[in-house]
Amino acid sequence: MSKQHTLIMPLDMHLHLRDGVMLETVAPLTSYTFSGAVIMPNLVPPVTSKEAVIAYKERILSACGYEMQENDFMDEDGLGGGDFEPLMTLFYQNYDEGFIEEIQDEIFAIKLYPAGITTNSEGGVKSFDIETMRPTLEAMERLHIPLLVHGETDGFVMDREAEFMSIYELLAGNFPDLKIVMEHITTKAAVDMLDKYANLYATITIHHLLITLDDVAGGMMKPHLFCKPIAKRPEDREALLKIALNAHPKVMFGSDSAPHPQDKKEACGCAAGVFTAPIALQLLCELFDDHGKLNNLQSFVSDNAQSIYGICPEFKEVTLVKEAFKVPEKYGNVVPMYSGETIAWSIEDVL
Amino acid sequence: MSKQHTLIMPLDMHLHLRDGVMLETVAPLTSYTFSGAVIMPNLVPPVTSKEAVIAYKERILSACGYEMQENDFMDEDGLGGGDFEPLMTLFYQNYDEGFIEEIQDEIFAIKLYPAGITTNSEGGVKSFDIETMRPTLEAMERLHIPLLVHGETDGFVMDREAEFMSIYELLAGNFPDLKIVMEHITTKAAVDMLDKYANLYATITIHHLLITLDDVAGGMMKPHLFCKPIAKRPEDREALLKIALNAHPKVMFGSDSAPHPQDKKEACGCAAGVFTAPIALQLLCELFDDHGKLNNLQSFVSDNAQSIYGICPEFKEVTLVKEAFKVPEKYGNVVPMYSGETIAWSIEDVL
Repeated sequence: MSKQHTLIMPLDMHLHLRDGVMLETVAPLTSYTFSGAVIMPNLVPPVTSKEAVIAYKERILSACGYEMQENDFMDEDGLGGGDFEPLMTLFYQNYDEGFIEEIQDEIFAIKLYPAGITTNSEGGVKSFDIETMRPTLEAMERLHIPLLVHGETDGFVMDREAEFMSIYELLAGNFPDLKIVMEHITTKAAVDMLDKYANLYATITIHHLLITLDDVAGGMMKPHLFCKPIAKRPEDREALLKIALNAHPKVMFGSDSAPHPQDKKEACGCAAGVFTAPIALQLLCELFDDHGKLNNLQSFVSDNAQSIYGICPEFKEVTLVKEAFKVPEKYGNVVPMYSGETIAWSIEDVL
Repeated sequence: MSKQHTLIMPLDMHLHLRDGVMLETVAPLTSYTFSGAVIMPNLVPPVTSKEAVIAYKERILSACGYEMQENDFMDEDGLGGGDFEPLMTLFYQNYDEGFIEEIQDEIFAIKLYPAGITTNSEGGVKSFDIETMRPTLEAMERLHIPLLVHGETDGFVMDREAEFMSIYELLAGNFPDLKIVMEHITTKAAVDMLDKYANLYATITIHHLLITLDDVAGGMMKPHLFCKPIAKRPEDREALLKIALNAHPKVMFGSDSAPHPQDKKEACGCAAGVFTAPIALQLLCELFDDHGKLNNLQSFVSDNAQSIYGICPEFKEVTLVKEAFKVPEKYGNVVPMYSGETIAWSIEDVL
């Protein structure tokens, strides 16, 4: 009998679901195997109001095939609404305290983008002036709302994340009670920050654990592996692998799965984003198994996030089996990572 | 009246013309404005025999609209055959001396590819064992045949050229009378080598003077700017610019213009190569003019190569004018660099 491994309540702590037809295509692929996912707010226009948060959550649940029950979308435990919970985020702007108080029950976190740094981030932060940001960040601190950060400067592409470390230091040092998550980290520089500030955490994608810039542009150029932050150097990947495989308690899985239609990827100007949602757990099993670290995967893919955020996801049990899974060429019009290739692990059962 | 600048006998010291329909499409675009071009031998199969060299040269001249006259394709001065001269290269293998003696009159240089390092290079050098290579390289030394080198290791994509410097040192040190050209250099590491060995020279492309990895993958990913060696860091580009704009006497223009059909560029796996042949002189004029270095362009684009190789190209006079030139979307099915964009300089006249 093939080797099996069961994951309890997997969580994707960084996910792009987009909207409209794309949302309908990709949301069920995540809700099938994950108990919850942190939903990115970089729609067009970005999610910046209570009404927009609630309406987007309704559209997500509807796309997943769930009906949202009035007043039931955020349970007492901070989760709820069926067996998949979209953990909603608000697009960071300098909001006043009253607004944040009013919206706090509808959101899980606030997501900060530097202006123009990635897909649909034009309305993000133009200048990291701490005094301008202080009222918002102090309100978040007081209300225990985490700050999730896309940490890149507008510098040279291979240096952007490392250059952003000084901004993480500024934020973490000035707001010691604010929970700050360095999203989708890709560098040794970011890994090294984790043990420097008690209030700094991180998510890591599956693709940044598997690839370097060599895979994106070392042989043929691979648009479906192009994302922001871009995959970095081998020594960066090694540093990420070390903390992920050992389930460093401040690190969580966040796929940053980011679907684009095929014609926006295979084009003169290819949009940034790797689509991994439906293959993430299989790839994680394969990776952790190959390194003899399968026993640490539960922490990386769920337990750490539960501890860090103090959340109790709806029950879900996903059993994977070490049997070959051929990745579909496409999901709708979205080409996934490893399209048409084979992964050593498959989803066996979801309870 | 618009500013004008005349270039005498421009030379492209590194050019891919491919074969068949592609050759027919691109060859005339080079022969129109250049007096000569060094033709890369990485066809399928590579050019490794006298017959193949002669036949390929015939096909090139035919594509350019010239008839090759028997025994006239290589004049006494080392050039000849109408007003465009394809300077033929042989694909490096460990050849015996007799073969090289027999072929010497048909070739301008021998081009060395590490095996598998770029398009159609599978038959290249697998191991840089100097003693194995010595008979070939000593014969080339004795017969004054230059060695042109694609200098990349199979390491991490951003390090490949810098890592290759030790092989250049080995070659330049062991064969001091062999003229070695570091082709399409992209790094400060290669620039720094130029003054270290008397027998080391370099070609530089126009695209590596204009772009860094930021342009390829810093915003959207741009397949038509993807090439090997990949564009590097800003400080690398600065080092290249400095020696090109000042017409360092050991540096020559070589476009490395490398056409691929559009569907091979805008695809899941995008082939390496930037197509610049028909816009190279316009871009060079714009770049040198912007830096107030127009007077150095003649050396970079022709005189240095004439001195380094001791060649006298057929006469050609190309006059450019500072008037906007809109780059065609495509040449045949090949998308050029800056497709649809505007360059400040145009070709005014070719005599």
